[in-house]
Amino acid sequence: MTLTRKGQATRERILEAAAELIAHRGVAGTSTEDVRKAAGISGSQLYHYFDSKQALIRAVILRQAEAPLVPGEPVMGPLDSFEALRAWADAAVEHQEHNHGRGDCTLTSLAGELGPADDQLREDLCNVFERWQSLLHDGLKAMRERGELRAEADLDELSMALLAALQGGGLLSRTLRTAEPLRASMKAALAYVHSFMP
Amino acid sequence: MTLTRKGQATRERILEAAAELIAHRGVAGTSTEDVRKAAGISGSQLYHYFDSKQALIRAVILRQAEAPLVPGEPVMGPLDSFEALRAWADAAVEHQEHNHGRGDCTLTSLAGELGPADDQLREDLCNVFERWQSLLHDGLKAMRERGELRAEADLDELSMALLAALQGGGLLSRTLRTAEPLRASMKAALAYVHSFMP
Repeated sequence: MTLTRKGQATRERILEAAAELIAHRGVAGTSTEDVRKAAGISGSQLYHYFDSKQALIRAVILRQAEAPLVPGEPVMGPLDSFEALRAWADAAVEHQEHNHGRGDCTLTSLAGELGPADDQLREDLCNVFERWQSLLHDGLKAMRERGELRAEADLDELSMALLAALQGGGLLSRTLRTAEPLRASMKAALAYVHSFMP
Repeated sequence: MTLTRKGQATRERILEAAAELIAHRGVAGTSTEDVRKAAGISGSQLYHYFDSKQALIRAVILRQAEAPLVPGEPVMGPLDSFEALRAWADAAVEHQEHNHGRGDCTLTSLAGELGPADDQLREDLCNVFERWQSLLHDGLKAMRERGELRAEADLDELSMALLAALQGGGLLSRTLRTAEPLRASMKAALAYVHSFMP
């Protein structure tokens, strides 16, 4: 479907409203009617863009693939230095602090809610996590090529540890309503990366 | 309510069935009817033990507080040495491997699904996470007292980083259906603890 500029803006407004609702209430707790109201549009308009709840959820996930790793932040540059990684971690912790540990995390909500029957949803989530991991991986690779990480650094492992720290710290922060878990997990993961510096 | 031995066994069977269903389908995807069928009991029996879905979910959470940190494992001894921590991490990774990354994680599911209105649920989850953190904290404290960790080791931070690695690695493993994320996150967190050895 080709959309006019206005159509694209409406579609984006729907996706933003849906992402925010899902981050706070989960998929099961978010109805298309909730999304319609939050986006301030009519039912037939919503249906024009997304003909089912599933289509809407999918679009929310795929949109996150293009989004930065930290919600609410402008797209960050490449994470290809220790300073850039630290700035990324700091931005994530600040986001949690600013929201008193209630920072959104649409994808963590979605992944937590995943059932065995949600194969399409799971695949879409995999794609996003893999894309995020590859952003981290690319940055670490550039560091290793410049000699800022030792040759034996396992980039798959390091990028996965960073992503897991973001997800696990975010999940605990959201539950405990404090930024401390995310701060601790990011500090530990960064220290691990740092231990591979020459 | 005081239960006979047989009553306790039935209650436990209900909770086990509920925990397994929630781990795989989430809270929203699990009805009391599903639990009743999985436990092989009648509706009036279920109602005798838990008079609402909420009461059942609460009991599932509180039961996890007494459960070991790794599902399916016998209760582990105190995590008060680097070897014990490594054995704990290995058991968690093996559990994921054995289940091809589909290992249960009832609490991660629950925490992911939390909405803003679930205040009681959130508090119960906090209690469990805090109890788990304190198990880790106690072990690290014993290590520090024996001089196996340097005096400046921040035990709150280390225990939180370990717990976040377990949660984040578990969440990614469950989504990506491989034990690698959990392996990477636990390795990074243990290395961070190790960096505080004298």
